Amino acid sequence: MSPFTGSAGRTPDWHHLRYELTDGVATVTLTRPEKLNALTFGAYADLRDLLAELSRERSVRALVLAGEGRGFCSGGDVDEIIGATLSMDTAQLLDFNRMTGQVVRAVRECPFPVIAAVHGVAAGAGAVLALAADFRVADPSARFAFLFTRVGLSGGDMGAAYLLPRVVGLGHATRLLMLGEPVRAPEAERIGLISELTDEGHADEGAQALARRLADGPALAYAQTKALLTAELDMPLAAAVELDAATQALLMNGEDYTEFHAAFTEKRAPKWRGR
Amino acid sequence: MSPFTGSAGRTPDWHHLRYELTDGVATVTLTRPEKLNALTFGAYADLRDLLAELSRERSVRALVLAGEGRGFCSGGDVDEIIGATLSMDTAQLLDFNRMTGQVVRAVRECPFPVIAAVHGVAAGAGAVLALAADFRVADPSARFAFLFTRVGLSGGDMGAAYLLPRVVGLGHATRLLMLGEPVRAPEAERIGLISELTDEGHADEGAQALARRLADGPALAYAQTKALLTAELDMPLAAAVELDAATQALLMNGEDYTEFHAAFTEKRAPKWRGR
Amino acid sequence: MSPFTGSAGRTPDWHHLRYELTDGVATVTLTRPEKLNALTFGAYADLRDLLAELSRERSVRALVLAGEGRGFCSGGDVDEIIGATLSMDTAQLLDFNRMTGQVVRAVRECPFPVIAAVHGVAAGAGAVLALAADFRVADPSARFAFLFTRVGLSGGDMGAAYLLPRVVGLGHATRLLMLGEPVRAPEAERIGLISELTDEGHADEGAQALARRLADGPALAYAQTKALLTAELDMPLAAAVELDAATQALLMNGEDYTEFHAAFTEKRAPKWRGR
Repeated sequence: MSPFTGSAGRTPDWHHLRYELTDGVATVTLTRPEKLNALTFGAYADLRDLLAELSRERSVRALVLAGEGRGFCSGGDVDEIIGATLSMDTAQLLDFNRMTGQVVRAVRECPFPVIAAVHGVAAGAGAVLALAADFRVADPSARFAFLFTRVGLSGGDMGAAYLLPRVVGLGHATRLLMLGEPVRAPEAERIGLISELTDEGHADEGAQALARRLADGPALAYAQTKALLTAELDMPLAAAVELDAATQALLMNGEDYTEFHAAFTEKRAPKWRGR
Repeated sequence: MSPFTGSAGRTPDWHHLRYELTDGVATVTLTRPEKLNALTFGAYADLRDLLAELSRERSVRALVLAGEGRGFCSGGDVDEIIGATLSMDTAQLLDFNRMTGQVVRAVRECPFPVIAAVHGVAAGAGAVLALAADFRVADPSARFAFLFTRVGLSGGDMGAAYLLPRVVGLGHATRLLMLGEPVRAPEAERIGLISELTDEGHADEGAQALARRLADGPALAYAQTKALLTAELDMPLAAAVELDAATQALLMNGEDYTEFHAAFTEKRAPKWRGR
Repeated sequence: MSPFTGSAGRTPDWHHLRYELTDGVATVTLTRPEKLNALTFGAYADLRDLLAELSRERSVRALVLAGEGRGFCSGGDVDEIIGATLSMDTAQLLDFNRMTGQVVRAVRECPFPVIAAVHGVAAGAGAVLALAADFRVADPSARFAFLFTRVGLSGGDMGAAYLLPRVVGLGHATRLLMLGEPVRAPEAERIGLISELTDEGHADEGAQALARRLADGPALAYAQTKALLTAELDMPLAAAVELDAATQALLMNGEDYTEFHAAFTEKRAPKWRGR
């Protein structure tokens, strides 16, 4: 770890999710299959803190977010979250909702691409987690439902009212967030909510293959592409063009750019170092 | 009416449109079928002031905007508007164009969802009115045309150059606003301009059914969802996430959220109060 | 030329592209067919300066950007650009990348619509040039590839991370800019990247026909529509509505608006003057 990015040590164990790292590819798996991976307070907190740790390290070049069992994630647990929030005071409610939003910000702002591997249900907070990812690799069983209004809450949860119009347009986003109806894979693909549709049962495999490709490629170029996509949603054109120029000038001093040219000249495949 | 939202009394009669209210569902109908509901100065002014009144009251939980006769709305009347503007001075022209823009802002900012029921032509200002609505329930006869350039004006009328790229993307929006060509129902559905496509002749019925569902549901949750969708188009991600957190914390103190949990626990349907 | 828009004289010759002007329609053609119109430093500089000159004049009412030979433009030349940048210092790298960004800003900000006529490859900077245009008229051979990461650079080059999400949505844009894979005409049309799909071999012809129509029409109305579309991507709704009102009030004093009403009254076609 570089002191420029972090000094706090690594957390060895995570209790509310499974974390694996294989040669630059991190896999975070929600592991409550008996509850369709419904999120608990602990799971949100772990996601937030794990992503913060991984953003300080340089060990991760791509991350897969997956769910064990029959679906991706059914959202906040009705008993452990909805029930519990009913007896919270105002400050606690704000802290809880800020925590969930911090998870989405961490997914958008971490310095590596995040790939959601979606099969079965991605509902409520689970749908927003998938939405916040850079890629949604889904199989035909995938079913997205932003069902917040169905529990009496705002469809704009965890940044969904910011993100969804920018992914599928304001018309579709209004319909999806207002009504909370399920969007099945064919419609999700048609409106741009799915990045890659795999064969049935192959979402995890497809997500891992994409993560492997990203981790083995020019990872700094991917990280900067993600950073610019995230930042430039909130910037005017003139500023975005200036940011692009500075970023590109920086990367033209990088090892991978030099390597590309050498490989091209020598008619061989580049050996990317991710720098 | 709450003093927090309004003190001016209700206007009993509207002269340039028909207004009905049935148990939380307002229906505003353009009633110049012999002119394809071409808008007049009076119709714009009525729309602006009616929406302002309804925003101050708490009687409306969803609003349908419909057109009588063969089409939804053919836009500004060639004689009564275009002809009249030719003899206006600068200040009057600005006042007129601000008035039309105020209608669009009122549609986007009123605290209840607006559903445009579109059959036949939705042209010029009529197309922008439909575009500003939260939902466009249309039948196969629907035909949208942003034909401002065809009369020598800018395609960016009443916020269209802001809204349309955010609904259908910049490429389609440029084509539609520059050329003013009609977009028929199949294309409108394909590019995300239609929220719900009904059978021929059933746009009004579909819009009413949706309005009824929204008015009978958790109406405050819907209103906040709309408010966040509108506001977060103009906000950066970090601010949007914070707004979501505060909104959700607020609604978690609301009656409908408590009712959802009680109903879920008792295995019955929730009785929404819209609070 | 009006002193309000320019005083520098016209440049008679351009060395890195072909420039033609026919009754208001400018055609800029990339003319290195043996290199698939790969861009050189000179070509970028010419595009930037030519667009600046044309923006100061009043001779151009629409512009077609085309490529000679088998494709539209294969992007920055591997030898003449990538190779050369490897020995540049920091200030030079920034100057180069600012120059390419200035071309995109010039395309977005010039006071006439720009139509990219795309056949075959539109790769790297060529894909961004097409993306920056107001219209992409393409034939079935068109193939867009934002392949910056494939040379170790950021996908956010020349404003692509700003523009592409606003044209095709954040999900598709992330996939295209991260992976740099080719997007063929059917997918490009489906996601909104193509404005008009022509028959094979007819992209140039289609682009010229559209440019002719725009140049012969109410050109000031088109120019303002473009200006508002560009500006309102970066503005909040309330400001956009106010800008629309001022613009429309201005154009209602214009000759073309008066002419439209006269022609309509006299049941004849309008004679547009573009003012």
